[in-house]
Amino acid sequence: MKLKVKDMDIATGDLQVVLLNQQDAAELDLHHMDRLVVRKNSKKTIAILDIGESEKAVPPGHIGLFEEVLDALHAKQGDFVTIDRAEKPESVTYIKRKLDGERLGPRELTTIVKDIVDNKLTDVELTSFVISSYTRGMNMKEVAALTRAMAETGQILKFNKYPIVDVHSIGGVPGNRTTMLIVPILVAAGCIVPKTSSRAITSPAGTADTMEVLCPVTLPIWKLKKIIDDVGGFLIWGGSVNLAPADDKIIRIEHPLSIDAEGQMLASIMAKKASVGATHLLMEIPIGHGTKVKSTKAAKHLSKHFSELGNALGIKIKTIITEGSQPIGSGIGPVLEARDVIFALKSDPRAPKDLIDKSIMMAGELLEFCGKSKKGHGEKVARRLLHTGAAFGAMTKIVEAQGGKMPDPEKLKTAPYTHTLRAHKTGKIKIIATDLISKVARLAGAPIDPDAGIYLHQHCRCIVRKGEPILTIYARSSASLRVAIKKMHELGGIPLL
Amino acid sequence: MKLKVKDMDIATGDLQVVLLNQQDAAELDLHHMDRLVVRKNSKKTIAILDIGESEKAVPPGHIGLFEEVLDALHAKQGDFVTIDRAEKPESVTYIKRKLDGERLGPRELTTIVKDIVDNKLTDVELTSFVISSYTRGMNMKEVAALTRAMAETGQILKFNKYPIVDVHSIGGVPGNRTTMLIVPILVAAGCIVPKTSSRAITSPAGTADTMEVLCPVTLPIWKLKKIIDDVGGFLIWGGSVNLAPADDKIIRIEHPLSIDAEGQMLASIMAKKASVGATHLLMEIPIGHGTKVKSTKAAKHLSKHFSELGNALGIKIKTIITEGSQPIGSGIGPVLEARDVIFALKSDPRAPKDLIDKSIMMAGELLEFCGKSKKGHGEKVARRLLHTGAAFGAMTKIVEAQGGKMPDPEKLKTAPYTHTLRAHKTGKIKIIATDLISKVARLAGAPIDPDAGIYLHQHCRCIVRKGEPILTIYARSSASLRVAIKKMHELGGIPLL
Repeated sequence: MKLKVKDMDIATGDLQVVLLNQQDAAELDLHHMDRLVVRKNSKKTIAILDIGESEKAVPPGHIGLFEEVLDALHAKQGDFVTIDRAEKPESVTYIKRKLDGERLGPRELTTIVKDIVDNKLTDVELTSFVISSYTRGMNMKEVAALTRAMAETGQILKFNKYPIVDVHSIGGVPGNRTTMLIVPILVAAGCIVPKTSSRAITSPAGTADTMEVLCPVTLPIWKLKKIIDDVGGFLIWGGSVNLAPADDKIIRIEHPLSIDAEGQMLASIMAKKASVGATHLLMEIPIGHGTKVKSTKAAKHLSKHFSELGNALGIKIKTIITEGSQPIGSGIGPVLEARDVIFALKSDPRAPKDLIDKSIMMAGELLEFCGKSKKGHGEKVARRLLHTGAAFGAMTKIVEAQGGKMPDPEKLKTAPYTHTLRAHKTGKIKIIATDLISKVARLAGAPIDPDAGIYLHQHCRCIVRKGEPILTIYARSSASLRVAIKKMHELGGIPLL
Repeated sequence: MKLKVKDMDIATGDLQVVLLNQQDAAELDLHHMDRLVVRKNSKKTIAILDIGESEKAVPPGHIGLFEEVLDALHAKQGDFVTIDRAEKPESVTYIKRKLDGERLGPRELTTIVKDIVDNKLTDVELTSFVISSYTRGMNMKEVAALTRAMAETGQILKFNKYPIVDVHSIGGVPGNRTTMLIVPILVAAGCIVPKTSSRAITSPAGTADTMEVLCPVTLPIWKLKKIIDDVGGFLIWGGSVNLAPADDKIIRIEHPLSIDAEGQMLASIMAKKASVGATHLLMEIPIGHGTKVKSTKAAKHLSKHFSELGNALGIKIKTIITEGSQPIGSGIGPVLEARDVIFALKSDPRAPKDLIDKSIMMAGELLEFCGKSKKGHGEKVARRLLHTGAAFGAMTKIVEAQGGKMPDPEKLKTAPYTHTLRAHKTGKIKIIATDLISKVARLAGAPIDPDAGIYLHQHCRCIVRKGEPILTIYARSSASLRVAIKKMHELGGIPLL
């Protein structure tokens, strides 16, 4: 059938969509979400059908083309195109199998993941895959195949070096900037560390946001390869390198229903490690109020599954369970956290001790694990690399290689509007709730205003005297500051015993 | 946040959708498919967020409103609206429970179904419900609650009469126009028969398409009530009365994945029977090549579940399993089938005997079942009502009450382009495949061209002599006729032994 093009002037951002009037659709026996081959001269593309009821959306005899389809066909308003029914992609047959309780093999999962990445599946089809994988469950073979498929359908960074180490923390603790100390310590020890990190999603800063205070975190692939050759490590934003791109599309489906499918979570994390060719991975699972993993039992269960998946993928994994009930470090927000990190790298007495201790412990574990230090000596080696300034030197090289300049921490500017919470009596700090800190720091402006956030003068279980500062909030406007203060009081503030 | 309205000039037909530029969405920490409260002065509505990447879709500071949202807010291009994050509807929490394997109660299912009908769920949420109901399964309590919820969220026809009888056939046999004989026989016997039927979906004619040859099949509710009082029965298109409207929305999700969830199928059928207040239902399950139900075992299993559900709903159900491997009647397509029916009602010798016998058998079963005839006398009573012209009289009243006029069957016009397939040798007809007949009749134009279709001169296992006609195809154009003939030969024609 020949139809006249209406430019819908709208982009879906992914799926190719065309719109027919319901009269035409009925006549052609076409249904919502059917696939059509749309042709203009020698160009053709496959699009998903949407059906409009009104003449206003699209009149009979016309076809509304969304941006992606116009581009694919080099078509414009008033052109003529023809349509034919298209076959469903093979992946839909495989999704149906999963739905019916069958196990899927590597070929099936690769086909599905490829179609997810290429935006060939509708929300209904993609949701069916995600939900049936969740309700039917995936065994370890399936998870491993899914992981490989997710890695292979994205950018692969190949370095041909050894050992390639990585560290991952199962989110939930604000100010947890250990990665920015562990990476330079490991680089200083001669490890290859191609580290990709996330930006904040619900927290006041992700490692990538904090690193961005020092240097760019989005770099081209050729540059990354050169940095590995020259320096041995980098610390960039994972979103910039298109590693395992299926992940975001799957998360987009899980998000509205807060689905937490273990198989997909394992695959999501490990696909990115496989993409950078990691040989050794240290997995941190913090447990405490407000962390993602709630109990030691759950953490051990997860740890076992990570190891099994690591075995299947040829990645050695060591898991550590850490205390996660209060923030690590003093600064919360990109600039305030970056300052903590530089103080620590420079062995400045103002550096938060908890951040240093935890980073040295983790770096030590990794050094032993990947064979860069003898058993029982990891922490000692790590501490030496930090205290001699070797780690600071490595970080300076990394920052410069990524196109930045290591700043003087004294000169890092914090946001101008501040409010300091002081102890109303002498007492012991009962708890500094991580979710209160996250919410208040975000309302103050972090991470969008990188200089906004919170500075913790005290830690949990410390004794404070009446009038002493507990924390300071930083914001760019008095309005943001006011909202942040209000939220802090609403959430119960910082209780003293 | 205050945003300037862009009229997207597009209607979704159901969901309320707004579009933000990704820059604004990131700043507000909003994600694709989040729900927003959109306000203009005193008007407000809840819409689903879509995110555009380009300035062209919607520039920063603007909000693209789809038709449904513009209408709800009485807004137009250039107006200002404010947005706030909206809570997820309660139904999403219940869907999450089903996803996690819990059983849902009547309150939960009613909330979900209500939100489905009110277009409050996204495709991701609705798919999650459909898929998890399928993979987790529903027990009979859940199916009964779903059925009631589906009935209650639609139009309810209440007649306060007894017995109210209904008949249903689990599709798959072309030309199965028994309903158009059973209804007038039952009405003639004094039963109340508020019969709603479907239009063709993949077949050459549904009962509603064939009935429409005689009279309108879309009538207002007040008229239907009057017809029941005056005549005792009607035969209309189910789509015109908004019975159990959730059903179509659920089918829209099942369709792309060819999901056949038994629980949802039971609920879908029975909700419509509950909506018309049926007290007695005869359920026909045809089995044979190309029917929906494939084996006697499957039919018995289904029959058991229908009875259980009927018990829960207070509807008495009797199931019969019939032979479904060849078309019933001679005409295939609305006009050709209508002619068969009128011939049968007038006891014309040209009436197809198989159609009459099957209709009398089924009507007889129902008459005994609902107490209108003694045990063992149902068929006799039914045959008498047909042969005396009582059924023809009842049908004439029904047709006239619905606004039509019973036509002279001799004057019903068939499509002008015809092709007759003749036996190339003397032999026995091995099979008349129902799927071949369906496909060829549809290609000839049925049901969109009601006068197109097929007339079967012979039935399966009949002896034909060389040169005798087997079937005639009717089409409105030589092109349609050509395509239909080609398909018939491709599918192997009508094989002779």
